[in-house]
Amino acid sequence: MNTPFAPGMHLLIDLWGASHLDEIDYVERALKQAATACGATILSVHLHSFGKNSGVTGVAILAESHISIHTWPEIDYVALDVFLCGNSDPHRAVPVLHEFFKPKKMKVTEAARGKEIQII
Amino acid sequence: MNTPFAPGMHLLIDLWGASHLDEIDYVERALKQAATACGATILSVHLHSFGKNSGVTGVAILAESHISIHTWPEIDYVALDVFLCGNSDPHRAVPVLHEFFKPKKMKVTEAARGKEIQII
Repeated sequence: MNTPFAPGMHLLIDLWGASHLDEIDYVERALKQAATACGATILSVHLHSFGKNSGVTGVAILAESHISIHTWPEIDYVALDVFLCGNSDPHRAVPVLHEFFKPKKMKVTEAARGKEIQII
Repeated sequence: MNTPFAPGMHLLIDLWGASHLDEIDYVERALKQAATACGATILSVHLHSFGKNSGVTGVAILAESHISIHTWPEIDYVALDVFLCGNSDPHRAVPVLHEFFKPKKMKVTEAARGKEIQII
């Protein structure tokens, strides 16, 4: 039987001209507040710092999927993605992330995950 | 000065009709082998099982970014993403993931991250 189903919405968020990109505690607060703004349940947060003036990489694992972050302070660039399954709205993370990292330019790309017809 | 820069390639991978989706140890092996196939360095792996016959969610944090996975065994669907910065090629993960989860249908979507002109 073919049945449509929709596991969720995945946002890819690029920030240019962003700030605080080598501050791991600051990045952790940003992820937690972004998750909270979405109404998501945080299962765990795992971040790795590559050192002073270097990038931070990691993820908040959510009951509703995840938020990942990778920062390049040497070029003031951040790559994030916010994937929330079900009816949760990842767009609610966007203003929170903008407020934390204060980018001069932001791009948000949407990918609807699992929006195909089930094949079995 | 405007300078082009390219932090990396991000693949969104959807699998339908996939197998082994509630087996957390199996999922962990899949992520590790996918990372290894890409020549990536695994910093840590964090997975959460929602229980028997339920999904597995989590991430492998890499020195080169991440691989995430979220499984829905009730509909035989998996959402993965593989993000590798620099010259690493995330496409090398695809046949490994296909071999592990044996989907009946697979979709791979590419997103080049940070491929814009730097604005500052």
